Amino acid sequence: MSTRKVAVVGAGLSGSVLARELADSGRFQVAVFEERPHVGGNCRCFRDPDSGVLVHEFGPHVFHTSREDVWRYVRRWDEFRPHTLRVKAVTERGVFSLPINLLTINQFFGLRLDPRRAEAFIAGLGDRSVKEPRTFEEQALRYLGRELYQAFFRGYTKKQWGIEPAGLPTSILARLPVRFNYDDGYYNDTYSAIPVHGYTHVVEQLLDHPRLEVHLSRSIGRSDAREFDHVFYTGSLDRWFEYDIGRLAYRSVLFERLIERGDYQGTAVINYCEERVPYTRVTEFKHFTPWEEHELTVCFRETSIPAGAGDPLCYPVPLSERSGPLWEYVARAQRERHATFLGRLGTYRYLDMHVVVAEALDLARKVLEAPTAAERWPRFTGMPVPLDGISC
Amino acid sequence: MSTRKVAVVGAGLSGSVLARELADSGRFQVAVFEERPHVGGNCRCFRDPDSGVLVHEFGPHVFHTSREDVWRYVRRWDEFRPHTLRVKAVTERGVFSLPINLLTINQFFGLRLDPRRAEAFIAGLGDRSVKEPRTFEEQALRYLGRELYQAFFRGYTKKQWGIEPAGLPTSILARLPVRFNYDDGYYNDTYSAIPVHGYTHVVEQLLDHPRLEVHLSRSIGRSDAREFDHVFYTGSLDRWFEYDIGRLAYRSVLFERLIERGDYQGTAVINYCEERVPYTRVTEFKHFTPWEEHELTVCFRETSIPAGAGDPLCYPVPLSERSGPLWEYVARAQRERHATFLGRLGTYRYLDMHVVVAEALDLARKVLEAPTAAERWPRFTGMPVPLDGISC
Repeated sequence: MSTRKVAVVGAGLSGSVLARELADSGRFQVAVFEERPHVGGNCRCFRDPDSGVLVHEFGPHVFHTSREDVWRYVRRWDEFRPHTLRVKAVTERGVFSLPINLLTINQFFGLRLDPRRAEAFIAGLGDRSVKEPRTFEEQALRYLGRELYQAFFRGYTKKQWGIEPAGLPTSILARLPVRFNYDDGYYNDTYSAIPVHGYTHVVEQLLDHPRLEVHLSRSIGRSDAREFDHVFYTGSLDRWFEYDIGRLAYRSVLFERLIERGDYQGTAVINYCEERVPYTRVTEFKHFTPWEEHELTVCFRETSIPAGAGDPLCYPVPLSERSGPLWEYVARAQRERHATFLGRLGTYRYLDMHVVVAEALDLARKVLEAPTAAERWPRFTGMPVPLDGISC
Repeated sequence: MSTRKVAVVGAGLSGSVLARELADSGRFQVAVFEERPHVGGNCRCFRDPDSGVLVHEFGPHVFHTSREDVWRYVRRWDEFRPHTLRVKAVTERGVFSLPINLLTINQFFGLRLDPRRAEAFIAGLGDRSVKEPRTFEEQALRYLGRELYQAFFRGYTKKQWGIEPAGLPTSILARLPVRFNYDDGYYNDTYSAIPVHGYTHVVEQLLDHPRLEVHLSRSIGRSDAREFDHVFYTGSLDRWFEYDIGRLAYRSVLFERLIERGDYQGTAVINYCEERVPYTRVTEFKHFTPWEEHELTVCFRETSIPAGAGDPLCYPVPLSERSGPLWEYVARAQRERHATFLGRLGTYRYLDMHVVVAEALDLARKVLEAPTAAERWPRFTGMPVPLDGISC
């Protein structure tokens, strides 16, 4: 069996896991192309030069998963220390714990309910005139009532997506349920952790392999695909097709850096829910690495903006039925013979890191198990679906 | 070097760790005497017969430590899964997070303070007319002000110790500081975890050794000491001396068992701070083992009482200067040639499990390193000091 030459476009988590797995098999020579001057994609970490704090360039990243194989896999590349994200929300009515849990409910309404009574109480707040919610707003009103919706979701969602909540699909709420207990961990997964040396280190470890070469500040496109036996593409789907039926909408983020002494906000992530406050959240990174000591502290304050040319692409925009050119791009991607698409940008889905790792591992397995004929390359790894969660 | 025959009185954590270490050395034949019909002392766990939930017979036990050797040691005997105790407090003003942290402060006063402003705010609440606090109450008023003291500490402390807070020493507050950040973990230690099979399993593993025999429902006292080369005593100090200058005061706990379907209170531990509520806290044990599934849930509701004859001895009572016969017992213990005292009861100190393990390991090391002459047995492992923390 001869060695095949494949390209991986993008040195983020998707591309790096896939590249590593293919290189490790001994059956592929892998060329990774990354248009940025560094690896890590949107989970890139680096040490802030003034404070020495490990910061996440594109906002807070906490690795969480319930898949044993994924958890085992990532820990091959760094030590992951347990970290549970516990978000606080600043609202017009004060500071609360998010996701909405029994403490939030009791404090917001000045009550002392137990789980059973809280569930009945929240059910009683819902707007029963909404029979079948068709939008995010209707769903929130139906299941939470106006007060909680107004305080926690309306302003934040509008700022995050730049769309009136009445124009967003219901699916956006699915990921952030109300909890009728005191569990205030943001995610429900079995494992939740932070790599001690950061995500960039993880990616660097992944890419350090004799059958794998990394080309920084260089990208390849559809017209270069013939030079390789196959291309695995983790860039933006519309870009692969040179935007020829239009651009997909993305949200980007403006990061404003704050540097201070001591402890700026007392926790890693605070969401700002009021519409009148322009930013959506502030991340104070030293709280992710409590085992390090730093005199200075550095925070990133995030403001959500529509992605213009040159802006980092952070979130695919939640889709309602009117989804522009997406489905056409998807159909074309599925017909591509020389390219397979994966990752957040390549499949236009709002994927967390653990999903990206899982999908890259699954794709690698399919590739390695497939017969060698070129037409057996797995296609587009997942159908894009309307965004199924609120940004963390 | 001949094998020596030693007795360990009490099969709690102290006695079991010490017994194991001495047996493991190969230099001792160890006889463990436990007056109860089971091992585990006050950290005993068992499966509740109706629900199948692993309960802690004498109230909630979360193992926490910052000592690497202790952490490594306990994990030899069971898998310890991370668990951070996050206590909620029901007060006359609603439900809050405890220890008092930035969320508690912001919620209690309806504010949105950052760490720096919260610190200044709390400093401003303190009663400055108290110059040098001499009691728990004065200290709380000096550093927290009347509102927080009243809501969180006055009633709870009075119920827990059966003493007016004005009669308690200042040291009682030391362990429960106010935090000016959103960290709501009850303990500050590096590691905090629950053994998957429970503490009784840990103790059973410790005691399973060919050079170690366990005698249940049997105790030995001072008059039996001559039968052994040495006795290590983890029982109550006054009992060793047959109470001959009086009894040491202990608090005991009445446990009322509640059994229900589902989720009773939404978290493991809720403290009840109001004086008018007779009980101090409720523990719902299934929240300690989220990896298990149970339809039923079992809770223990605790009421603190003075220990009468036959009651389990739970907490040494905090001492002010008037400490009764304690110091005389301590002096006698230090003169004992054939016995060494350790553990919560043996040294009349309110010790957490990790301290008990650390002290037993340290004592074992001293014993094993000492020359063989009998007079070199280490004495009383620690001086009893006034209680330095509020019960968890």
